[in-house]
Amino acid sequence: MEMKYNKVTDEVLKDLRGIVGEENVLTDKETIKLYSSDEAPIGLEATAEVVVKPKCTDEVSDILSLANEKMIPVTPRGQGTGLCNGAVPVYGGILLSLERMNRILEIDEDNLMAVVEAGVVLSDLRLEVERRGLFYPADPGERTSFIGGNIGTNAGGMNGVKYGKTRDYVLGLEAVLPNGKVLNLGGKVVKRSMGYDLMHLIIGSEGTLAVVTKAILKLIRLPKIFITLYVPFSNMYDAAKSVSEILREKVTPTAIELVEREVILEAENRLGKRMPHHDADAYLIIRIDGDKEEELYGDAEAVSEICLSNNAVDVLVADTKERQSVIWDIRSVFYEAIVKSREADIVDAAIPPSKMPLYIERIKKISDEYGVKILSYGHAGDGNIHVHPIKDGLSDEEWNEKLPKVMMKLYSEAKNLGGVVSGEHGIGWTKKKYLPICLDKEEIRIMKEIKKIFDPNNILNPGKIFDA
Amino acid sequence: MEMKYNKVTDEVLKDLRGIVGEENVLTDKETIKLYSSDEAPIGLEATAEVVVKPKCTDEVSDILSLANEKMIPVTPRGQGTGLCNGAVPVYGGILLSLERMNRILEIDEDNLMAVVEAGVVLSDLRLEVERRGLFYPADPGERTSFIGGNIGTNAGGMNGVKYGKTRDYVLGLEAVLPNGKVLNLGGKVVKRSMGYDLMHLIIGSEGTLAVVTKAILKLIRLPKIFITLYVPFSNMYDAAKSVSEILREKVTPTAIELVEREVILEAENRLGKRMPHHDADAYLIIRIDGDKEEELYGDAEAVSEICLSNNAVDVLVADTKERQSVIWDIRSVFYEAIVKSREADIVDAAIPPSKMPLYIERIKKISDEYGVKILSYGHAGDGNIHVHPIKDGLSDEEWNEKLPKVMMKLYSEAKNLGGVVSGEHGIGWTKKKYLPICLDKEEIRIMKEIKKIFDPNNILNPGKIFDA
Repeated sequence: MEMKYNKVTDEVLKDLRGIVGEENVLTDKETIKLYSSDEAPIGLEATAEVVVKPKCTDEVSDILSLANEKMIPVTPRGQGTGLCNGAVPVYGGILLSLERMNRILEIDEDNLMAVVEAGVVLSDLRLEVERRGLFYPADPGERTSFIGGNIGTNAGGMNGVKYGKTRDYVLGLEAVLPNGKVLNLGGKVVKRSMGYDLMHLIIGSEGTLAVVTKAILKLIRLPKIFITLYVPFSNMYDAAKSVSEILREKVTPTAIELVEREVILEAENRLGKRMPHHDADAYLIIRIDGDKEEELYGDAEAVSEICLSNNAVDVLVADTKERQSVIWDIRSVFYEAIVKSREADIVDAAIPPSKMPLYIERIKKISDEYGVKILSYGHAGDGNIHVHPIKDGLSDEEWNEKLPKVMMKLYSEAKNLGGVVSGEHGIGWTKKKYLPICLDKEEIRIMKEIKKIFDPNNILNPGKIFDA
Repeated sequence: MEMKYNKVTDEVLKDLRGIVGEENVLTDKETIKLYSSDEAPIGLEATAEVVVKPKCTDEVSDILSLANEKMIPVTPRGQGTGLCNGAVPVYGGILLSLERMNRILEIDEDNLMAVVEAGVVLSDLRLEVERRGLFYPADPGERTSFIGGNIGTNAGGMNGVKYGKTRDYVLGLEAVLPNGKVLNLGGKVVKRSMGYDLMHLIIGSEGTLAVVTKAILKLIRLPKIFITLYVPFSNMYDAAKSVSEILREKVTPTAIELVEREVILEAENRLGKRMPHHDADAYLIIRIDGDKEEELYGDAEAVSEICLSNNAVDVLVADTKERQSVIWDIRSVFYEAIVKSREADIVDAAIPPSKMPLYIERIKKISDEYGVKILSYGHAGDGNIHVHPIKDGLSDEEWNEKLPKVMMKLYSEAKNLGGVVSGEHGIGWTKKKYLPICLDKEEIRIMKEIKKIFDPNNILNPGKIFDA
């Protein structure tokens, strides 16, 4: 597929400086390189021609109008914590960093809503609302991510079991089209039935339809108490089976994470902290929240009993803030611990939660069949698991030959169980080839036609999700 | 705008009989007339040429392919309980009734999901899942409606305060395009980030993009106890102000309904039942649910205190099933009680919940200014209120002159408060003229282009939402 884009000329640079000011147009090669990658385990060689940092919606609008007119690709970027090369400027052009649009504009305590710019850091928003006794529950592992990026991939994370994903908390969006026009979608309303929902179309569109500049987010009240159970098992299957049974019970934990021993050990080393137990082959990490202590402990007991009846080795309860922090801090580096210390790829399948034990068995079978080591962990409670094929012990040649087959097999087995190719990371550049496993031709055709409506010149994050 | 549709010829009738069988192709004029209207307070004169009743997705596909090829309009219809003439066949053609596709295909207790055909009656689904201790919370007042219709308008209803709207419970859809192709969108997965979300695009599209044939719905566990508070106030403003304060408290009722006395009296008469109190000018009806009795009564007390501090006349507690049934049965006929006994129209605005007292004041002002009686009730807890201008005491001429102005004013004031034209009823035919109040031209342009992708011949429910 051939793209006919123009280069960022000196004249374009001058125009960009006119829009955002001299200091917000970066052309230094090293800087550009830093902005041209994300956290994908297998990166891409690509660099933008310029990094531009707008401060407000009008500036975003002017940049897009200019790029659209000059046929220059624009890649919007949040914190660059995505895992699919979704923010990598594969056709060069302008890298549009939203980092300066980082204001929390309003926390509306009457309506339990927040209005934020796209460049607000997730952890900043969480802290700010928690100070007021409120809670923004969408919680992808990476809390340094930007809200705009969370919206771009419909980010999920730990709390999906009880609280859902980013989409469930977006009530309104301001988004700029490639033609520079600004859409105001949704609003501070709970219900809305007014034609086709363009807001939901833009959520999860990975910056390919419009650049999200502001969001109205739903908040809930902060639960008063959290406790964490840390449950060792002698194998992944028993742990996964416990999850299915917990979900059938009259208890809904905030989070149920499943992980195998080796990942725990790597993460402990990476962070220099220790889990309360690390000698069993598999673990569940279960968080329960609520407002009443006795109820919480009642739920914890019910969950413990299920785990023990499924051969849990023990059930450790962390109820102080400090003990819980250690566990969740270690949890938060699982991904880094795996990919920074070795070559690995990642599968982000989501399957019907009840099928998790079956999927765990199939992963084991695929590992044995291809002779490729596989490490897994993830959000077992909502059926979203991260599966890492690992290069350990393989030559470059073997790895390059086996990896694509193993990846395809892992996705296909997820599909066979009624699952999908991406639970929460999005498609980006990396997973385009797996999309046809789950979407039929007609669906992809419609998506491509929709892309043309929003972005007829294909300047906005081109090459992502599919080849337009 | 001119439409170039073809008529339903004898040849087409023969083809239709071939697809669904002789007995499911209805051509009797009286029958067709029955199928050609919905429950809108001000109806439309329009009739289909034939009513067709498919039994399965393949039949829907064949009917649509045929109609698309022959350029015959198709209007999909659920139970016909909509309020915007959305299911009225304004260009004649085929009326596609989904009534025979009424099977609950699966209740998946492991994943808390149901798989249903589009023609399943909401109350049937609710009963079936409640029998298993599960709950489908989306609850538009009209429980004889079809699930397919609920999805078409993103139906809301009473439980929006705590549980949201239909969109929040749809995990997957099977939908047939005008070209006959069948899309399978979403699935039994909680998380999904896989390109543009066509499922969310179809939800709320009022049968103009595709015909929904099946849905995968999320269920939750049935709360163990419900209680209802019935709270008289001496005016609507105090009642509305209490709602805002309740929402700021650490209590989330299932439902908070606001209504004025005259509506109560009409509804009592219509149903031949009596509310426990009907001498005050305004009422809140508040439902609270939970699993623990003491917690529930604690919440009820907190709510009561807020109401009393806002001049509530009394707080009546209904805790037996029978007492609650009387209240909610009467609540369920508010709409009928108003529109069946007099000429009236309906506004379905949704505003930021905290603005309700302000909107109530403005409604009063509009009523005084135009000399048009207005009766209101609705889902105050989620900011969605139904406002009825009433003809009482006006001549036909006065009514025809004043009504459009009053309607426009009621919608504009909702917009001024950050609200939208439709909270839950959709746009249909009736509200097209109000859409530009809330949506800008660019948004409507994009919607029209999306319509063309799905339905290039504009055969599917033409004339609805906007003129294509």
